[in-house]
Amino acid sequence: MVIVEAVRWSDDQRAVRIIDQRELPSREVVRELRTLDDVCDAISTLSVRGAPAIGIAGAMGLVVTSLEFAQLARTSFLDRLQENADRIRATRPTAVNLGWALGRVLAVARASDESGESLVRRLRDEVTSILDEDRAMCRRIGEHGAALIRDGARVLTHCNAGALATAGIGTALATIYVATEQGKHIHVFADETRPLLQGSRLTAWELSRAGIPVSVLADGAAASLMRECGVDLCIVGADRIAANGDVANKVGTYALAIAAQRHGIPFYVAAPSSTFDPLTASGDQIEIEQRQANELRMGFGVRTAPESVGAYNPAFDVTPAELITGIVSDRGIHYPPYDFSKGLE
Amino acid sequence: MVIVEAVRWSDDQRAVRIIDQRELPSREVVRELRTLDDVCDAISTLSVRGAPAIGIAGAMGLVVTSLEFAQLARTSFLDRLQENADRIRATRPTAVNLGWALGRVLAVARASDESGESLVRRLRDEVTSILDEDRAMCRRIGEHGAALIRDGARVLTHCNAGALATAGIGTALATIYVATEQGKHIHVFADETRPLLQGSRLTAWELSRAGIPVSVLADGAAASLMRECGVDLCIVGADRIAANGDVANKVGTYALAIAAQRHGIPFYVAAPSSTFDPLTASGDQIEIEQRQANELRMGFGVRTAPESVGAYNPAFDVTPAELITGIVSDRGIHYPPYDFSKGLE
Repeated sequence: MVIVEAVRWSDDQRAVRIIDQRELPSREVVRELRTLDDVCDAISTLSVRGAPAIGIAGAMGLVVTSLEFAQLARTSFLDRLQENADRIRATRPTAVNLGWALGRVLAVARASDESGESLVRRLRDEVTSILDEDRAMCRRIGEHGAALIRDGARVLTHCNAGALATAGIGTALATIYVATEQGKHIHVFADETRPLLQGSRLTAWELSRAGIPVSVLADGAAASLMRECGVDLCIVGADRIAANGDVANKVGTYALAIAAQRHGIPFYVAAPSSTFDPLTASGDQIEIEQRQANELRMGFGVRTAPESVGAYNPAFDVTPAELITGIVSDRGIHYPPYDFSKGLE
Repeated sequence: MVIVEAVRWSDDQRAVRIIDQRELPSREVVRELRTLDDVCDAISTLSVRGAPAIGIAGAMGLVVTSLEFAQLARTSFLDRLQENADRIRATRPTAVNLGWALGRVLAVARASDESGESLVRRLRDEVTSILDEDRAMCRRIGEHGAALIRDGARVLTHCNAGALATAGIGTALATIYVATEQGKHIHVFADETRPLLQGSRLTAWELSRAGIPVSVLADGAAASLMRECGVDLCIVGADRIAANGDVANKVGTYALAIAAQRHGIPFYVAAPSSTFDPLTASGDQIEIEQRQANELRMGFGVRTAPESVGAYNPAFDVTPAELITGIVSDRGIHYPPYDFSKGLE
């Protein structure tokens, strides 16, 4: 089984190698990001997306773009490094992972007494650690979650919580990859996930590339699929998990959870420990980003609704904990009653 | 308030005048159908759609295309009329209304002892009656349903059960038009309705053209709208209503009804009496048409999913009667327990 790698070092370790997700599913275009403009452009245009993947691509980008001023004296080097980090962070200001990963590189740079190429090597090692940690975390989520999936299962997912969103094998999709490695035959149903179609464009692409059978469906057809054809399990990713187990994820997740409950279908969420937010007591405190109306009015580059009409276009919705059968993290499977007020132990 | 007319006679009464729905919402293109090819093409390419509108356009088309052989002797005229009717019917073989409306024209032709232009005039009068009946029926549905909608209401609908689907003011949307005529201020939320986007392309267009405030949303966002913003009422159309009140309608309707139940939001269906099917005992007996995968894999001419993946793409779903608060017909509002086994009295 070949699982795609969304973000990695180039062969010469002097560039960030990404799959340009804007081109999917039509073409698999690999880009090597070498300049600051390359890196900022790739993140801001969503060539690379998914919280862990963005963080890692940004941190890798910070390292490779520091090569050109590696010969500077330490103080000047640190100033330039900070400037670059600020520019990269500004491409997706609300992406928590991006700030966190860039901060980790800056902290190592400041704590080190090295300079020049040897300092850059140290920073590269730090980012390689972040990358390895992300891969290991995905793998652990996959191993915990695979136990939930029986041979022959029909699994429904939403959006893309896959390899394309991380440096590893994903979160929700990691469970499917590991179950497949274990010899289980799984059929995945992927909600297309309007408006940006991450399900049909990305999830369907990465699963079919790995040889896993996958069918796409309109988001509105998921309840009908449950009723007419049967679904064994739903599993989705998460953008943020509140202390009480409420989950913010791509819009459409909540509707899926309601339908799953009606049909008695287990509904799981998979996410790394960094997604759990002990400071948010419940989903009511999660502010939902509203995205621009043209994602709905101009779908696919064609006019899909009159220019003059309004739009309700939230990026996320909140699924209350009571609808969630279990939450799979890199630490194990968590069951209700949920209490993440102290984070994951 | 200007409500669009989807199908009507041309000014000279020698052509069928339609709004080409393939061009919406970008352009309002009016076409006059004069030849058999025009008529068949308009129906088969979905330039005209919606069960009542198709039936009426087909019957009008049968009359206008008979003008060119009106001078034939009676028997030859009837033969040609039958041939044309067969060709028109074959464009949408499963559209019950089309066969019914064509049959009504043929029956009048056979029962009449007239010939030539005067026979064609008689057929035209018959079709005008069908048109007038459809308009009156829409109006009655609107009047019954308007009573359900309060001033200031936020109403959620799915697909297009509007003027564009009938010769009159629609079915589900008729309730909104009549309530607006009564001076009520209503905000409509229109599910975009993937894969063919009848909600954003057609419902949003005809409502905004009538000056009624409308917002579009992704189908997956409807449950979030109910939770975050509140919805007073859902109202949708129907393709078929079984004797026990189960409703087949555009895919996505069932998911909406489940979400409405969770939020305690009344869920209504609006349909003419011809939609009630006493011979179908329950929704389980309704066969669901599967449509081609490319509606999902190639949205609007753009590749939206890999070519190789499967698709679950039912045209309709079935909403069980228990989720339906009431059914608005031209005869009134029907409440549970539903029993349409003798049709509508």
